[in-house]
Amino acid sequence: MKYSTLFGKTIKDVPHDIVSVSHKLLYKAGYIRDSSNGRYYFLPLGLKVHQKIQKIIKEEMDAAGYQEIVTPIFHPVDLWKETGRTESVGFELLKVRDRNNAEFVLGGTAEEMLVELVRKFQVSYKDMPFGLYQFSTKFRDEMRSRGGLLRMKEFVMKDAYSFNISQEDFKDEYMKMQDVYKNIFKRVGLDIKMVSADNGYIGGDYCHEFIVESDVGESQFLESSDGTYLAHQDIAKFSRGEILKEEFLPLEYSNSTNNPISKFVRGDLFKDENNNFYVVFTRGDIEVNTIKLAHVLGVYDISKVLNDDLLKMGFLSGKISPFDTKGLKTVGDISLKTIVNGYAYSKYTSKYALNINYSRDFQLNIIDDIALAPLGSLSEDGKDLILKKGVEVGHIFQLGFHYSSKMSGAHFTDKDGKTKPYYMGCYGIGIARTLATIVEVHHDDKGIVWPESVAPFMVHLVGINMNDSKVKEAADKLYKKLTDIGVDVLYDDRLDVFPGEKLSDADIIGIPHRVVISPKTLKDGNNIEYMLRKDRISKILNPDKLNEEFINQ
Amino acid sequence: MKYSTLFGKTIKDVPHDIVSVSHKLLYKAGYIRDSSNGRYYFLPLGLKVHQKIQKIIKEEMDAAGYQEIVTPIFHPVDLWKETGRTESVGFELLKVRDRNNAEFVLGGTAEEMLVELVRKFQVSYKDMPFGLYQFSTKFRDEMRSRGGLLRMKEFVMKDAYSFNISQEDFKDEYMKMQDVYKNIFKRVGLDIKMVSADNGYIGGDYCHEFIVESDVGESQFLESSDGTYLAHQDIAKFSRGEILKEEFLPLEYSNSTNNPISKFVRGDLFKDENNNFYVVFTRGDIEVNTIKLAHVLGVYDISKVLNDDLLKMGFLSGKISPFDTKGLKTVGDISLKTIVNGYAYSKYTSKYALNINYSRDFQLNIIDDIALAPLGSLSEDGKDLILKKGVEVGHIFQLGFHYSSKMSGAHFTDKDGKTKPYYMGCYGIGIARTLATIVEVHHDDKGIVWPESVAPFMVHLVGINMNDSKVKEAADKLYKKLTDIGVDVLYDDRLDVFPGEKLSDADIIGIPHRVVISPKTLKDGNNIEYMLRKDRISKILNPDKLNEEFINQ
Repeated sequence: MKYSTLFGKTIKDVPHDIVSVSHKLLYKAGYIRDSSNGRYYFLPLGLKVHQKIQKIIKEEMDAAGYQEIVTPIFHPVDLWKETGRTESVGFELLKVRDRNNAEFVLGGTAEEMLVELVRKFQVSYKDMPFGLYQFSTKFRDEMRSRGGLLRMKEFVMKDAYSFNISQEDFKDEYMKMQDVYKNIFKRVGLDIKMVSADNGYIGGDYCHEFIVESDVGESQFLESSDGTYLAHQDIAKFSRGEILKEEFLPLEYSNSTNNPISKFVRGDLFKDENNNFYVVFTRGDIEVNTIKLAHVLGVYDISKVLNDDLLKMGFLSGKISPFDTKGLKTVGDISLKTIVNGYAYSKYTSKYALNINYSRDFQLNIIDDIALAPLGSLSEDGKDLILKKGVEVGHIFQLGFHYSSKMSGAHFTDKDGKTKPYYMGCYGIGIARTLATIVEVHHDDKGIVWPESVAPFMVHLVGINMNDSKVKEAADKLYKKLTDIGVDVLYDDRLDVFPGEKLSDADIIGIPHRVVISPKTLKDGNNIEYMLRKDRISKILNPDKLNEEFINQ
Repeated sequence: MKYSTLFGKTIKDVPHDIVSVSHKLLYKAGYIRDSSNGRYYFLPLGLKVHQKIQKIIKEEMDAAGYQEIVTPIFHPVDLWKETGRTESVGFELLKVRDRNNAEFVLGGTAEEMLVELVRKFQVSYKDMPFGLYQFSTKFRDEMRSRGGLLRMKEFVMKDAYSFNISQEDFKDEYMKMQDVYKNIFKRVGLDIKMVSADNGYIGGDYCHEFIVESDVGESQFLESSDGTYLAHQDIAKFSRGEILKEEFLPLEYSNSTNNPISKFVRGDLFKDENNNFYVVFTRGDIEVNTIKLAHVLGVYDISKVLNDDLLKMGFLSGKISPFDTKGLKTVGDISLKTIVNGYAYSKYTSKYALNINYSRDFQLNIIDDIALAPLGSLSEDGKDLILKKGVEVGHIFQLGFHYSSKMSGAHFTDKDGKTKPYYMGCYGIGIARTLATIVEVHHDDKGIVWPESVAPFMVHLVGINMNDSKVKEAADKLYKKLTDIGVDVLYDDRLDVFPGEKLSDADIIGIPHRVVISPKTLKDGNNIEYMLRKDRISKILNPDKLNEEFINQ
């Protein structure tokens, strides 16, 4: 393709509200443009990369025996009601009514649609296991998106669904898909970590995120020093430390205390999506994790209550006492059990209760793991846990019977002639986020450095001084030659652009192999200047030797 | 692919509400399944065909120099307000609000989005002309869909947009795209007629539908006997006949008349989308075409008023007189001018007015072409017009300055340094409708007969009596051999299915080349039975000769 005719060229400046490196580079280099918040146009260069990633995913999914289908984008809301997900997913779910007043969900995932499709068929054990996948546009009604393609409101997702006859059978499927995902991410040039994660609104008992470590990521996870334990902070287990070997002392009251914060029984007020209130206690040095708390309570959305709501319920900010919980449901983190002779606010808010001990002095309705691992935590088996950040590019879920038990007819006929619910899994990859993450990882101070597998073109051919007929002739000839043998070339044939600008454009666009033809290279015997974008070391070559360079990389 | 593992096999019966041949066959053969009304799942076989059509379109669009991009599905409503289309498209337009109460249009076409994208760039005459296209899901909020994939509420459309510096320049573009479309439809196996058509809510002055003649189609068009005139009935011009050479007679009143219906001045009451009423007159033998009428009146939606509304306005059904139009705006078809000494209801609804003549006895606010060509019409140059039906598979539009004049900044910088609006065109193809139309045209009483270019597989390999180890061995071997050389094979390897069922499955699925291996074919010297699906004449062959058969077709 000739760069002169390409729609979407490089520009010098990007709007000031663009902050992430990938957003900045993709914008500047002419891969994308912003539409409304969280929605993007893919320009020809950007779409080419998007399609290459998609092709790699398709190849790996096909090789794994998955079959591509496509479901409508509009999911009848009745299907979502069957599984109760219209309630559980909260505000991120977009709904729309048509002129007949029929209601639809614009889904983030399509479990109900897939089960609905599969139950239209008479599936028997002989058809099992099987897996289906699609590439389709998904919607997330986020309050506000950030980071360009890293978090979008509308994006193409590859979502796959597996149907197995049993949990045992599913285990192999799940292991297979872990390998499929590892292959996919390796092929697109990403080093991933497979991290146990929260299953969010998808359902099921366990799942794993595929995370690329990066400071721009929103996934926070903990990795043990030996790399054997990897878990998202929303589910990570960690040691609360030893129980101190002290004698229980008698309860006292005092206006002040010199006890460390790690002996403080701190109370906070929380509220769920149905406006139910909970009084929640943790050890003073540990914070509540709302995802863990929501799971323990079996609710979907929970947040700490402040100011007005707190007063309305009769509490003072920061002074919630385990001895005065106003009859509300109480929850505590397991860390409370490590406190011996701790302290808390007494029911007289001006005084502390000292030497308090869980069980002896106060009890709570629930004691469970509801805390965020603080910096410096140890794993349950005593290894250092390191908090890391990264971008979740893929996510695989055990769904088990979560959907097949809720949706009628979601079963197969087994050997014994009986119908049984199938055991499901689901597997997602966001293409655009993967694309942006590749840029986050593969760039330098001059621009993007695409891995060959996903680069929009293989070769960037730059003609320097195209008004020189010899340059034009040599460049046209090489362009034709490479194109004829199937090499995808972006040919900068512009007449009115300075050499420096052409070269810096090539840098920012980031095509792996660069070939420059100029009066200078031609003077030295019809040569070309060849450079591999990633190391930027150039050499003078005879164009006939070119193939070897970029085919052997 | 092994048929035993294919998701979505043939079934015997289809639901009774499925009526069109393509819907029936695609359902029965396992290409699609219905979701909610007007929305469909594509099963693996169906998606393969869909992708093949898409690939052909992409190849032709790329060859024409168009560049693929993609826009968000959610179009900010403000863009549609710039062009006034939120009003003009009426009920078929789906809107959705996000949690921030921002309103979006789920568009049927994306003109505003494309102009919005292009105006983000500093486009100069040097960048022109250029063309952009996308494959993306489009929405039409129809009251009720019918005909399976022939009319859907949600479908993937290839929509392309061209940007030219002038009308002259655009003419070449428009001619080029006509050829591109002819190539595309030829390659997918469709004979098309290019028919002048109404531009609907897209805007612009003229456009053409690409129609495949078929009784299931909803497009009605007129073709002159010599094939030189082709126009959709909503815009077709036709002769109203000669003006009779009679002397004007004096006006009379009578209780009855023997005059022919072609001398009757018939009045009807119509109402537009804003509840404005119009009294509309035509010659008695001619019907009003509401599309023409709407264009003449500059309104979007107009329909004939009956019963209650008629009485409310003071009219009697069938007895609307040109002498008593209640002060409403009046419109007449040009056919009224051919009537000499005609008749109509007088203002006394029990009597006719005889010997009336337009202009002498009554006048109307507007006289224009607002009529549907009746059967037996002649073209304006005197040729027989034949009414035909067909499926509109593609549609190309001259948009002119329609969008670039309404949207600010929709311009390029010309040689003289001045900014000028660009001259636009737009070009659509619905993929699924094209797919269904191929089936409407290419089938026989046994099933689908795919053209090779879009067939889901090239070869259907059927093993008869797969329990016979020799059959299995020979079939496995041939499957591997063909697959290894890149031939796409669907291999019916099922063990527990009768030969007749396998063969009728192959018939209905419609893959072009069939190869049967059975104990019988093997007995005659390790042969195979080869059949071309379209002529169903089989022959016994040595498998080594197979390549010649299906490569030379």
